[in-house]
Amino acid sequence: MADGKVNEKGITPQSENFSRWYIDAIRKADLMDYTPVRGCIVFKPDGFELWERIQSVMDGRFKETGHRNAYFPMLIPESFFQKEKEHVEGFNPELPWVTEAGSEKLEEKLALRPTSETMVGRMYSQWIQSYRDLPVLINQWANVFRWEKRTLPFLRTSEFLWQEGHTAHATEEEAREETMQMLQIYKEVVEQELAIPVWMGQKTPSERFAGAVDTYSIEAMMKDGKAVQAGTSHYLGENFARGFDIQFLDRDNQQKYVHTTSWGTSTRLIGSMIMVHGDDRGLVNPPRMAPTQLVMIPVGPGKLREKVMEKFDPLFDQLKEAGIRVRADLRDESPGWKFNEWELRGVPLRLEIGPRDVDNNQVILARRDTGEKVTVELDRVVEQVEELLVKIQEEMFQRALDFREKNSYLEIETIGDLNAHVAQMEKESKAVGWVLAGWCGEESCESKVKEETKLTSRNIPFEAPVVKKRCIACGSESKFTTWFARAY
Amino acid sequence: MADGKVNEKGITPQSENFSRWYIDAIRKADLMDYTPVRGCIVFKPDGFELWERIQSVMDGRFKETGHRNAYFPMLIPESFFQKEKEHVEGFNPELPWVTEAGSEKLEEKLALRPTSETMVGRMYSQWIQSYRDLPVLINQWANVFRWEKRTLPFLRTSEFLWQEGHTAHATEEEAREETMQMLQIYKEVVEQELAIPVWMGQKTPSERFAGAVDTYSIEAMMKDGKAVQAGTSHYLGENFARGFDIQFLDRDNQQKYVHTTSWGTSTRLIGSMIMVHGDDRGLVNPPRMAPTQLVMIPVGPGKLREKVMEKFDPLFDQLKEAGIRVRADLRDESPGWKFNEWELRGVPLRLEIGPRDVDNNQVILARRDTGEKVTVELDRVVEQVEELLVKIQEEMFQRALDFREKNSYLEIETIGDLNAHVAQMEKESKAVGWVLAGWCGEESCESKVKEETKLTSRNIPFEAPVVKKRCIACGSESKFTTWFARAY
Ligand SMILES: [Zn+2]
Ligand SMILES: [Zn+2]
Repeated sequence: MADGKVNEKGITPQSENFSRWYIDAIRKADLMDYTPVRGCIVFKPDGFELWERIQSVMDGRFKETGHRNAYFPMLIPESFFQKEKEHVEGFNPELPWVTEAGSEKLEEKLALRPTSETMVGRMYSQWIQSYRDLPVLINQWANVFRWEKRTLPFLRTSEFLWQEGHTAHATEEEAREETMQMLQIYKEVVEQELAIPVWMGQKTPSERFAGAVDTYSIEAMMKDGKAVQAGTSHYLGENFARGFDIQFLDRDNQQKYVHTTSWGTSTRLIGSMIMVHGDDRGLVNPPRMAPTQLVMIPVGPGKLREKVMEKFDPLFDQLKEAGIRVRADLRDESPGWKFNEWELRGVPLRLEIGPRDVDNNQVILARRDTGEKVTVELDRVVEQVEELLVKIQEEMFQRALDFREKNSYLEIETIGDLNAHVAQMEKESKAVGWVLAGWCGEESCESKVKEETKLTSRNIPFEAPVVKKRCIACGSESKFTTWFARAY
Repeated sequence: MADGKVNEKGITPQSENFSRWYIDAIRKADLMDYTPVRGCIVFKPDGFELWERIQSVMDGRFKETGHRNAYFPMLIPESFFQKEKEHVEGFNPELPWVTEAGSEKLEEKLALRPTSETMVGRMYSQWIQSYRDLPVLINQWANVFRWEKRTLPFLRTSEFLWQEGHTAHATEEEAREETMQMLQIYKEVVEQELAIPVWMGQKTPSERFAGAVDTYSIEAMMKDGKAVQAGTSHYLGENFARGFDIQFLDRDNQQKYVHTTSWGTSTRLIGSMIMVHGDDRGLVNPPRMAPTQLVMIPVGPGKLREKVMEKFDPLFDQLKEAGIRVRADLRDESPGWKFNEWELRGVPLRLEIGPRDVDNNQVILARRDTGEKVTVELDRVVEQVEELLVKIQEEMFQRALDFREKNSYLEIETIGDLNAHVAQMEKESKAVGWVLAGWCGEESCESKVKEETKLTSRNIPFEAPVVKKRCIACGSESKFTTWFARAY
């Protein structure tokens, strides 16, 4: 931070340098710390709490849809990776290897899992014999490893936490339905709970998961206009079934390969939530995901504190009883210091009450997202807090949606125009944003866009806002209307 | 199983071969599977579900007592282990090492964590500066590794799941209170929820955690009379604080080392629950931990099924609404097949209802633990189920307690008598059980007992049932009344 401008909170403004803002914001909010192990971070309690809330919501949705959790070994024998050719090519460069244990060299080296399709495939081949054993619907919460060269806390680290679903089905149709169902669940959780609008769509072959037939994703726009792939769902076809010999005897007495899917979301969601909603005063947590939804702070001179606490304590109990995640800050610090602290941490609502408020039978509620303050009668506080939390959640989503629309470019038709757009935005230090472009389906055209502009294809949205007629790179007929953007 | 006797359920009877019974029981209940990675198992959904219940109860107790979850990197640099001499000696032989990543050799090899005192110590030294930063009360749910030569599912595997608490305090007194508080929580959860009676006590120096000043444990007796260490809590003194330089500026303006604790329980608890309660018909889950508490099975001829379902469905809803973890088995299999299946899985209560029961406005409830059946009026089912679940939980605990008393030997005074006891029990194929013995405190006496009888010291109970006057090995004055047993 030595050379940059920081504001009175010790945070680099977003407009100054977005990456630096991000690091400042998560450090001030005490979410993580760096460690001496390359690319590995500590998820500190305030950061991990965000993950616990995401887990709880996701896990509920998985169980509602018939999935159960299991746990597979973290270490994967080298030979497993050889069984699916694209898979090994995709992951090999990123794998950390265990080569010895105690003082003995291992006969076969073992990878720290980057994902578990291979281990799961090996086990499913033992578990699945008949159509009666299908479908298998399993999820795993686990740590995974990808030895990254350039890392960014929560968004790209060498070890991260995630869930990975792995299912096996008798038919392609059923497996494809599962793939779509899970993508839909991701969209709903991310939009409704994290207040992040996403585009559902299909990845292009070059961005596909190594070993998948089709990869689908939800893609979110950060406040710097860059994209985060916030969740993926893969139809794996028979690829892993053939690699690991997962066959079953079907009703028609034929031996068939199963069709498998996998789908995952990770601690990236924490980073996304911060980059979509945060501002120059720190984090802004959407109420449904906020570990603390309301912080209560007594104000006014200490000698009148007793009078305030007579109202404060019963109010705290009422709010708690109403199911609001409320916290009282009674530390021996100034109100201003506390306001700052809870702003940094992104608590959606702050309640202030002082001696004069007691006289007037009222409290002050301050919104984190807009800074707006309202005065509320004491006996209407619970009701008002409940209403405000719903309102803040809705408005945060709407603001993110508005921002996304403002930074989405639907009318750029040629690579020349795209280059001009990028140059213009960079000159003005503005977000390049997302560009909806026609694409003929040739990888060379996709690469051309990437090489010239550093924009990569994000996904081919299921419901594009407009349909593009011409390939942005070669001008021939467009087969796919595709989002292009710079991505984390 | 080729050479052993198995019963009609395909399970080796406990009296025949307890270890084989255990493996048969967990496989029939579909809790786990072996994998091609040495000593690593898959926790299948029915096994993992038991862990999820343990996690949920433990996590609640930790949070109630002010602890928060975090996540530390799994990979630990080799140099970290050197900082606490006993720690490195204790864990080195069991460590798997990552030596390369991608295609590059690492400069320093990284261990898969066997436990996280070193990584936590390194981070706490950055986080703790002042008495205001204390106490630090953090827990982590994680996978850990100990490269075991001989493994047993859930009880001893190369990778397992656990929680590890790590706290730092300003004073020895406070750290010791924390150590005891967590041990007490472990005892309460294991006794009240898992229905396993335990002895709380202190480990002897030879059984102490590598790097601890004092180690305390809860010890449980399995149905073969062997012991399982079901949880440990360590007062680490200043050992790790000195190794990692965790100092703070105290109120008196002096730089001081913090006092740390750590405490852990693991997926061993799953194995213990099975070995304490299971019988020749399979698992017997205590109601409070059972993922399914009651299974409902319609009986009688298929053509009368509709009539049965008219009562069955609303009853299911009622039970569910009352918060009972109920499951309906409507599969197209015979009632006998289903009874067998749910017995194997240890569901505490089975409800049967057939056409005649409908006529008589009643159902049958069958207990898994005793086999007892009772007829219950339809409109009293919810109430009866609730009462029975409480009763079963209590009686299971009491039976485990009775078993423990019956297999505890309090009056063996000399090593000669001990040898005779062991010989006698082995001759009769009976459990050697636990022996409460006096011990002078010399390691040589402890080793002598171990060498001659394979009994090791379990712990020095806080409240010994009797106080032993003479050391069992040398006959001199006893300092510690100690439990000795064979252990998993
Ligand atoms: Zn083209
Ligand atoms: Zn002695």
